[in-house]
Amino acid sequence: MTLRDDLRRALDEKAKPLGSIGRIEELAVQLGLIQGTLHPCVTDPVVLVFAGDHGAVASGVSAYPSAVTAAMVQTYLAGRAAVNLFAQQAGAHVLVVDAGVAADLPAHPGLIAAKIGRGTRNWLHGPAMTLGEVKASMQQAAAVVDRLADGGCTVLALGEMGIGNTASAALLAHKVAGLALEGLVGRGAGLDDAGLARKRATVAQGAARRPARLAPLDALAEYGGFEIAMLAGAILRAAERRVCVVVDGVIVTAAAILAHAMRPECLAACVFAHRSAEPGHDAMLAYLGTAPLLDLGMRLGEGSGAALALPLLRAAAAVLSDMADLRDVT
Amino acid sequence: MTLRDDLRRALDEKAKPLGSIGRIEELAVQLGLIQGTLHPCVTDPVVLVFAGDHGAVASGVSAYPSAVTAAMVQTYLAGRAAVNLFAQQAGAHVLVVDAGVAADLPAHPGLIAAKIGRGTRNWLHGPAMTLGEVKASMQQAAAVVDRLADGGCTVLALGEMGIGNTASAALLAHKVAGLALEGLVGRGAGLDDAGLARKRATVAQGAARRPARLAPLDALAEYGGFEIAMLAGAILRAAERRVCVVVDGVIVTAAAILAHAMRPECLAACVFAHRSAEPGHDAMLAYLGTAPLLDLGMRLGEGSGAALALPLLRAAAAVLSDMADLRDVT
Repeated sequence: MTLRDDLRRALDEKAKPLGSIGRIEELAVQLGLIQGTLHPCVTDPVVLVFAGDHGAVASGVSAYPSAVTAAMVQTYLAGRAAVNLFAQQAGAHVLVVDAGVAADLPAHPGLIAAKIGRGTRNWLHGPAMTLGEVKASMQQAAAVVDRLADGGCTVLALGEMGIGNTASAALLAHKVAGLALEGLVGRGAGLDDAGLARKRATVAQGAARRPARLAPLDALAEYGGFEIAMLAGAILRAAERRVCVVVDGVIVTAAAILAHAMRPECLAACVFAHRSAEPGHDAMLAYLGTAPLLDLGMRLGEGSGAALALPLLRAAAAVLSDMADLRDVT
Repeated sequence: MTLRDDLRRALDEKAKPLGSIGRIEELAVQLGLIQGTLHPCVTDPVVLVFAGDHGAVASGVSAYPSAVTAAMVQTYLAGRAAVNLFAQQAGAHVLVVDAGVAADLPAHPGLIAAKIGRGTRNWLHGPAMTLGEVKASMQQAAAVVDRLADGGCTVLALGEMGIGNTASAALLAHKVAGLALEGLVGRGAGLDDAGLARKRATVAQGAARRPARLAPLDALAEYGGFEIAMLAGAILRAAERRVCVVVDGVIVTAAAILAHAMRPECLAACVFAHRSAEPGHDAMLAYLGTAPLLDLGMRLGEGSGAALALPLLRAAAAVLSDMADLRDVT
């Protein structure tokens, strides 16, 4: 008998019709496999928000200026953004990682200073990062994950903030997964029709600068963001540490595509939280062969969707650990 | 300006792209309208599980005997069923109402004794209840809701337990909403192919006893259950009291169809929690013109799906009450 069989049998012995808790049962099996136990748990969950700026914003790929990245980081640190509220409902802490915000951020207990640079360079004209910056980003993220895992965190919800990063995510998914670029570019935080047309043209021009397909590290260097490289590094290390990763929307899914391209087995540690309203997410999820838990028409990022999925993970763990067996029911 | 406009504007002034929290925003508007305020809240949420038995079980419409109803009630009272675990995650209390279980249930602080009868009569041969029993059921439920509302409960998740009640729900939806009977009959708690064929035949035979369409009270008397009549009564009173009702799966949705047929405006107080894997739920939800929040392939009942949706209501309330406005973000 494998652990998977044992988990399946444990669920079938619970006081309920077979399979009647649907995806919560699948989630319980996944959580048990990640943690290597018949009694998985959700302890010290953290929503980790990686923030970074993008040089390509100068070429008009976002409805908002880069200054909004730092402003939203301050809002997270003040505990007043959607991600804070949703994390609080779920009993999770929010930590923000300064991966590469283009502003000086004052020290704060909720902020992990790991700035690789003050925003990336513009991928329209050349590589966004050096390979050294990519690797440094991934190592910094791995160190953060190690610290959280050592502290008892068993579930890590990943989010991000970075004006311009939906364009970067589209380019990365295109170059690494081979998905059609047109289907990946959307309105992001709210471009109008003219803005969307400009974003499409700019992204296509940026894509044309390099071959159709790239290896993940090269793609990150060419088109990535500091926060996206860190997300990929965090996923890989979390999977190694048997920490369950809750993947938020388009940006974190792009990072999951990168991590998967580097080490496919990391996907077993990933729970996909929600289907983003940003077009392209569907194709990315289908490429990874996964279906998210929630479909609420959200497109905010921040880790807001991942935070909303945390109660489902707690529910799944509770089914295995606390629910009566059929034989207990007289 | 109406309250709806004010709620919409309050959401649009939050620190996020317009509409980017999708259905959570719609939920926030609905909650604000139900409570008549720009700052709705989720206080003292309760999962109310109505339990009752069905005479038609003698004619083979369920994979389980009626004794399972009482056994599962004991499991709820012991706090060890799925609904208890999910409610606990969401910070909600579980209360069980004995609407008409065919067994003596010992007193328990979590049990509200409101037994109308020891199970209904078999609808295959005649009316399941008298009109007096239907009305008494609805009045008992209204009294329970009044007590909870007076105590400060602003959100009421409704669930049920009653071996045989998917057959009853199918007949009620057919007779009141005019939905095709074949599409409404499923495997319930787990009938095999032969069992499903028997259930279909029995339900069709029961349906043929009376005219194609019935008024809601008459339909309840002919084919209902004590717990379903109470669910309908609870929905109507909760709506009057401006308590938000979280509707679970097939059975509670059938009760919502009945309540809607009596007073259509009660639907404004209803949040549909999840899409059941039991066939027929889709048609019932479409008839009511609603789409549920979650789609997790669940078909357990108990209020388990409604309990899982409670964190989304808390999130929605928090967005209006605690989230930063755009003008707060420098």
